[in-house]
Amino acid sequence: MHSFLTRKGQGSVATAEPKLSEIYLGYIACLNRQDWSSLRHFVTDNVQYNDKPLRLGGYLNMLKAYCEEIPDVYFEVRTLITSPPLVASRLVFNCAPANRLLGLPVRGKRISFSENAFYLFNGEKIEQIWSVMDKMAIEAQL
Amino acid sequence: MHSFLTRKGQGSVATAEPKLSEIYLGYIACLNRQDWSSLRHFVTDNVQYNDKPLRLGGYLNMLKAYCEEIPDVYFEVRTLITSPPLVASRLVFNCAPANRLLGLPVRGKRISFSENAFYLFNGEKIEQIWSVMDKMAIEAQL
Repeated sequence: MHSFLTRKGQGSVATAEPKLSEIYLGYIACLNRQDWSSLRHFVTDNVQYNDKPLRLGGYLNMLKAYCEEIPDVYFEVRTLITSPPLVASRLVFNCAPANRLLGLPVRGKRISFSENAFYLFNGEKIEQIWSVMDKMAIEAQL
Repeated sequence: MHSFLTRKGQGSVATAEPKLSEIYLGYIACLNRQDWSSLRHFVTDNVQYNDKPLRLGGYLNMLKAYCEEIPDVYFEVRTLITSPPLVASRLVFNCAPANRLLGLPVRGKRISFSENAFYLFNGEKIEQIWSVMDKMAIEAQL
């Protein structure tokens, strides 16, 4: 039913268990440095985003586009829960997107919104992401 | 910084630790029964939703309105992570909202979307909820 149960049965998780929160925070630090060449250390080639098989290249392009839309982007982890091979993270953004964001005409206004995301790790790398951005919170601020 | 750290220091968590997932699934079962008179067993009087102090009455009204908008509503827990006093849950809805949902004209169309939510428990009851509904997923299906 849940793929993470299958994975657990396959025993691919144990090595990651002691430090999944550290690995995740390393991933977030990588995003905040916009250190795109290091992304492959944190994300598998076969990464899926909201059940779409983006693969590493597609996910990288998505992240780059997001960071271009938000010149002062900063990924702030507000709440983090790990239960290998799963991680849940509540990210908060306080930023001023230059033009449009999530289809909304933000045009430089300073806004605050959250992203609630779940990650499934394969060993020490992220293989699946299920993320929801709070578009309604942004709409309420425009 | 994080209120849950303070709470942990206050020692209000220990009793809930062995069974937070059970309590949470009981809460979801309560919602699926629309057993509104039992909601107070799962939610504190002072509950906040996305940092708004709704209190129990306000949260109850919000839930009732949601269930009225979606005649065939069913809360399905797809992923659940507990780390007392925190719970993270990815809920999935497959439903046909009668008219509008989250401001969108769904009008009976069958849609699927997720809600990624974090809960902070005070003892055995939910005191804070930080939830994001995937409005963009609904928009993409209309």
